[in-house]
Amino acid sequence: MMNQLQDVPTSVAFERISRLQGELQSGGMDGMLISQNIDLYYFTGSMQTGYAFVPAHGEPVFYVKRSVERAKQETGVTVKELGAFRQFRETLARDYPELFGSGQPLRIAADLDVLPAQTYLKLAELLAGPDGNVKLLDGSASIRKLRMIKSEMEVERIQAAAKAVDEALTESLNDLHEGMSELSWIARIEYELRIRGHIGLMRMRGYNQEIATGMLIAGAAAAMPSYFDGPAGGLGLGAASPQSVSRSLIRRNEPILLDIGCCIDGYIIDQTRTAVIGELPEKLAFAYQTSEAILREAEKRMIPGTVCSALYTHSLEQALSAGLSAHFMGYGADQAKFLGHGIGLEIDEWPVLAKGFDMPLQPGMVIAVEPKFTFPGQGVVGIENSYLITDESPRPLTRTKEELIKLP
Amino acid sequence: MMNQLQDVPTSVAFERISRLQGELQSGGMDGMLISQNIDLYYFTGSMQTGYAFVPAHGEPVFYVKRSVERAKQETGVTVKELGAFRQFRETLARDYPELFGSGQPLRIAADLDVLPAQTYLKLAELLAGPDGNVKLLDGSASIRKLRMIKSEMEVERIQAAAKAVDEALTESLNDLHEGMSELSWIARIEYELRIRGHIGLMRMRGYNQEIATGMLIAGAAAAMPSYFDGPAGGLGLGAASPQSVSRSLIRRNEPILLDIGCCIDGYIIDQTRTAVIGELPEKLAFAYQTSEAILREAEKRMIPGTVCSALYTHSLEQALSAGLSAHFMGYGADQAKFLGHGIGLEIDEWPVLAKGFDMPLQPGMVIAVEPKFTFPGQGVVGIENSYLITDESPRPLTRTKEELIKLP
Repeated sequence: MMNQLQDVPTSVAFERISRLQGELQSGGMDGMLISQNIDLYYFTGSMQTGYAFVPAHGEPVFYVKRSVERAKQETGVTVKELGAFRQFRETLARDYPELFGSGQPLRIAADLDVLPAQTYLKLAELLAGPDGNVKLLDGSASIRKLRMIKSEMEVERIQAAAKAVDEALTESLNDLHEGMSELSWIARIEYELRIRGHIGLMRMRGYNQEIATGMLIAGAAAAMPSYFDGPAGGLGLGAASPQSVSRSLIRRNEPILLDIGCCIDGYIIDQTRTAVIGELPEKLAFAYQTSEAILREAEKRMIPGTVCSALYTHSLEQALSAGLSAHFMGYGADQAKFLGHGIGLEIDEWPVLAKGFDMPLQPGMVIAVEPKFTFPGQGVVGIENSYLITDESPRPLTRTKEELIKLP
Repeated sequence: MMNQLQDVPTSVAFERISRLQGELQSGGMDGMLISQNIDLYYFTGSMQTGYAFVPAHGEPVFYVKRSVERAKQETGVTVKELGAFRQFRETLARDYPELFGSGQPLRIAADLDVLPAQTYLKLAELLAGPDGNVKLLDGSASIRKLRMIKSEMEVERIQAAAKAVDEALTESLNDLHEGMSELSWIARIEYELRIRGHIGLMRMRGYNQEIATGMLIAGAAAAMPSYFDGPAGGLGLGAASPQSVSRSLIRRNEPILLDIGCCIDGYIIDQTRTAVIGELPEKLAFAYQTSEAILREAEKRMIPGTVCSALYTHSLEQALSAGLSAHFMGYGADQAKFLGHGIGLEIDEWPVLAKGFDMPLQPGMVIAVEPKFTFPGQGVVGIENSYLITDESPRPLTRTKEELIKLP
């Protein structure tokens, strides 16, 4: 058997667990069951299938269904076999007699924003027991809050992903030419990303959301609205994949949106540049400049204490002043209502720079800011950088040169 | 605005909806709320974000959050704006007064095997109303049963995906050489798959499961156990992606498992071949022959009426007779307990050739059969073909030549 190194040092896993325990204690929870692969990886260092139980006080146990052997190599948290699911309450009562063996009412949190309802219902019934004294409650906000603040190691991984995207883009830009399909163009970049360690897809927490590497979309096809929870949609490859790249050909004098990312060693980068073969129409060139201006203004305000929603509101005002509010972050009824989003292990992390998201910025947050403008029939222009919030001005993690990329 | 062709003809969508209504009626359900992108696509032809409501009797409505405009282009089912989620019960009462306006107890099904618990809880509370007379129940088995039987159009799409995989494999095999990393090798094939229309990932229904294109894994790295719900695991790219390809180098005289697929126009193919640069060790060559023998025997039995679990049981007996039962479908505690699985829009469809899955085979099912043997420290060998169950013998959909691929 090969040795699998621990990817998250045991001390880091236990520090994260300790912070989770703080959240549980202040929320009046007796413990948390963690089920999602990404959450499991964050708190234990292993994403083998199973449930990690973190009591509000005391030692956690990772109950693994498969692979127990591999989980033991990957995590310093105690690993036990999950065994028969219908016995899980008895298993917990054996390991945590002061909780599950006590008969007292318990409040157990779980990552209910991702756990499927069918499993939730089985688990809730099973844990409730004959007296119905154990309640399974939503604790996903605690997890999202903790994961929002990145450690230096996490920032380094995001930077490594940013380096890979920059290299892949530089390597492939030479091949971009008029008449090339969006599909051929993304295949080229995805090859460069993959050989640099991209796992082949990016994780999204949102239900029904999926993304392999991003959107390399151009002209009218780029401006198609879509279900995708972002400012740009894309025609896609048919109704069964109605977003991102299509078989449309890239033409002269239309914007080419290069909104790409990758996931390396678990961590994601997300960035956007705009390119054109020839010249952008005047209005679109102005919109591109406005997206840069919005980014500059956001950079000034992205300091600890600034409220997330205020960044979005201010960007809306800038778009309005520029006479472009109908085109900002999508067009008309299909406008996305945000300016940026947290990134990390998933591409849709907290915080969100959106109306109603009234949390103040804190050092350690990593946020992709992506002002974009959509022109139906013509295309999408914009820019996206990712930043680490620090005590002073935000540290840019994106490496790619900022400019409208003009090809002859 | 560009025109997006309907991908699922309106008549096909309504025929599927009508079969779902038959299921609802026989299950004593008053209607079904469909929420998952793939289920929405199957029944409406559109996977825009929202809920499709299918009453047990009468006309369905697709309530769309985003993009309404695009949904209208993609489906012949009536599209309405979802509007404010907290008003959804009133919206349903307006459109279905004989159901939600009547005050009578209702049983509403939903795809609870995939709907996140957090959304389920909100939806269940919202629909229940002040009297609590509306119950939200799990109807996912009905959907899985219906989707299990493929139409000729669906089979053609699976065949198109099979053709793309065959071409991509043929095109890339020339580049496979000793000392190449698994990662470089999959990047090469993924490029070929992508330019042929692969959407970049394959959909899986199972919680926490993910797959971009499959596993091109070799030697000891291939034999690493993993959480992935399949017979082969793979070392992967670290604990944050602990399955499939790794950075390990492919060496002489070790098995190279080529377990790949793609998703084109929504439909998936899944196939496996085994290759070797040089010669396989004798025991592994024998195991490969045994996997072919198991497949031959399964082909004889894959006729309507054969019980799915019996196919698995018989394959276990063959593995036992060959003295290879400890290596069959994984090794030791990490063995997968199945021989094959349905494929279609998702890679983990029904039926499953597994213990306890006692459904008889029916014409129209499409099943990937994948006998494999794992040898820790040495590798994984096996073969996988996909078949359409017909009234007579199964029709192979996989095109790639069957043989142990030997490279000099």
